[in-house]
Amino acid sequence: MTQNNSKNPINDNEISGLSIYTFVTNAHYKKRKDLLLIVFDDLVNYAGLYTKSSCPSIPVQWCKKNLSQNTIKAILVNSGNANAFTGVKGHNDLIKILAPLSSRLGCQLNEIAVASTGVIGEFLNTDPIIEALSDEKVKKLSNWDDAAYAIMTTDTYPKLSFTKSSIDGHEIKIVGIAKGSGMIEPNMGTMLAFIFTDANVTKQILSILLRDITNNSFNSITVDGETSTSDTVILFSTNKANHKIVSDIETSSINYFRDDLEGLAIKLAQQIVRDGEGATKLIEIHVTGVNTKNAAMRISKSIANSPLVKTALYGEDPNWGRVISAIGKSYEKIDLEKLELFFGDHQITKNGSIIENYDESLVKKYMKNERLIITINLGSGRHEHKVWTCDLSHKYIDINTDYRS
Amino acid sequence: MTQNNSKNPINDNEISGLSIYTFVTNAHYKKRKDLLLIVFDDLVNYAGLYTKSSCPSIPVQWCKKNLSQNTIKAILVNSGNANAFTGVKGHNDLIKILAPLSSRLGCQLNEIAVASTGVIGEFLNTDPIIEALSDEKVKKLSNWDDAAYAIMTTDTYPKLSFTKSSIDGHEIKIVGIAKGSGMIEPNMGTMLAFIFTDANVTKQILSILLRDITNNSFNSITVDGETSTSDTVILFSTNKANHKIVSDIETSSINYFRDDLEGLAIKLAQQIVRDGEGATKLIEIHVTGVNTKNAAMRISKSIANSPLVKTALYGEDPNWGRVISAIGKSYEKIDLEKLELFFGDHQITKNGSIIENYDESLVKKYMKNERLIITINLGSGRHEHKVWTCDLSHKYIDINTDYRS
Repeated sequence: MTQNNSKNPINDNEISGLSIYTFVTNAHYKKRKDLLLIVFDDLVNYAGLYTKSSCPSIPVQWCKKNLSQNTIKAILVNSGNANAFTGVKGHNDLIKILAPLSSRLGCQLNEIAVASTGVIGEFLNTDPIIEALSDEKVKKLSNWDDAAYAIMTTDTYPKLSFTKSSIDGHEIKIVGIAKGSGMIEPNMGTMLAFIFTDANVTKQILSILLRDITNNSFNSITVDGETSTSDTVILFSTNKANHKIVSDIETSSINYFRDDLEGLAIKLAQQIVRDGEGATKLIEIHVTGVNTKNAAMRISKSIANSPLVKTALYGEDPNWGRVISAIGKSYEKIDLEKLELFFGDHQITKNGSIIENYDESLVKKYMKNERLIITINLGSGRHEHKVWTCDLSHKYIDINTDYRS
Repeated sequence: MTQNNSKNPINDNEISGLSIYTFVTNAHYKKRKDLLLIVFDDLVNYAGLYTKSSCPSIPVQWCKKNLSQNTIKAILVNSGNANAFTGVKGHNDLIKILAPLSSRLGCQLNEIAVASTGVIGEFLNTDPIIEALSDEKVKKLSNWDDAAYAIMTTDTYPKLSFTKSSIDGHEIKIVGIAKGSGMIEPNMGTMLAFIFTDANVTKQILSILLRDITNNSFNSITVDGETSTSDTVILFSTNKANHKIVSDIETSSINYFRDDLEGLAIKLAQQIVRDGEGATKLIEIHVTGVNTKNAAMRISKSIANSPLVKTALYGEDPNWGRVISAIGKSYEKIDLEKLELFFGDHQITKNGSIIENYDESLVKKYMKNERLIITINLGSGRHEHKVWTCDLSHKYIDINTDYRS
């Protein structure tokens, strides 16, 4: 396989030390890019987080079990088929694909990370994938736009984000791609998200950073409360940047980098929610004044996952009582008298019931916005959490009554 | 208030020792029965279970706090307004209604059980309710059909069940009414359900029986995974039957009674699910071969609450991979190789993937039924659990985008 360092078509978000390839395999979808291969010039550091599902897909099993080494040569991602609940044959199919690829790349099998999304329970159509990865086909370098496109399933647009950061005065680049639209409530990791940087940091630093940023980004979004078999987020560093290698998490030199990384992850996460199946609105649920961070997370998720809240928001109906009910089903201890609820800047409750002179017409008007912020202050502590979700519309039903066709 | 023992219109399910009254108050709905009062001849034993919501309604707070006595004179239920998150005013409104009623009935305030469902956060329209309960209006006895009707909100039909049982050779009657359609995943107690019997049993026996039967009935249904502010189930016994009073839970004399009570509760629970908002199918999820009862409950609920499973069932699409995914998001330990999945009698998986010679056309045909049974055998233990749910259709969205109008 040709290894070259020629520029990607979009220069500004080029990450040194990797090459992008995308393919139309026709394995599951017809005539669209559905396979992504990213090859690193050298073996690179990585950190991965995966679904907590007790029925994880074969690719998730593979990554968790086999990527025990510190370094990775390539990542291969297909869309259309999750290779989940496919048993021994599913595992063998994966090896069948990876064996020729690893020999071409001159690496070990377990130096290739993999991820798949799509239908669960169906066997991979391996031959077109193997064919696509043959020497003949892998010649033309691709770009990040195509990469983001190649990993889509029911997504209506590709998710891509790029940012520049710095470590010790040296410019650092970060690029992330993601996919996800339904079956979204990541719980450790997410749908699929891959973040690439040229930062020169150790594997241990990557692991800590990834865990930190995931809680406030990919683990803080929900479309339908579903955790998939395939959730995967992997952060790779090619270590090509010129600064001195960072191996101490306490150093202040990575503060900007950490913030920029989190900002990029939040952007990708929001892109996923905005593309939630059938979504017409992006909704931020901000829960403050809570005794513990965990309680704040549980309460915000309880609201964000409530189909009754989500349908009311779709209908632009300020039925705030449903938010109260959703707070209640978190089973966290709540002092009703202290609970303050806001839709946008409009305060709705005080002292345990609706405020005097509440003007519903103003809130009704606010609800016509495409981005809505619901804030709850429980008045009981100093912790807070923010999650993003979307509304629940007819189109969610349309898409999911017959997803496979 | 007139207390008489004249027959209810439907004699067969008459329970000795109580009188039923229903009213059209026009308080929240217009021109339909929306208020139910049941008055007991004597003070009766009762047992109640209530929502676990941390934002419980005023009526739930009232019952939990005030019904500490052993006996009850009456129960009052209104529909259309939940009197939830209404604070001090909500509490005062309730007292305003109960004060004249208790004086008419010659009982204490805390000898009246109350329950309300409907919109959360709006104040009760008390005057029409007080007016309805005035001496003038309470003259005409009503029947169980009207009682079941008077407690409905978005329900499309009244839920009523009647059965005969026996204790020590004496005939026992049991009547239950319930309401519930959306915001249904009871967690301790349920939507609203009230069960009346003439069995001569102690309050302690009632409490134990209610807890037993609720787990396999009202706590084993789900429409949308929502726990409401108002969930309440109360079991009353008028003690009018002629057998010797039962005060020992270990006695075999109440075995039939317990079974019949559970059967009736399951019937009511199934009626609620069949009337799930927008439901077109009643679905039974049966999880067997599990190490613990709790794990079996969590796995079955995880499937029953999955919007992706429910939309696939609505679309009659045998997308069984979504069931696997929903099992996975229970986070219980699963041996994928042992997992056997059935739609009706059709086995789908074996040894960790789809069975050989799987014929999807047969399963497609099966899915056209109005009642579907999905069975999962995890092959790992002797425990099992069954839950009932419905599919998720366009109509759920229709109903809930504008529930208040």
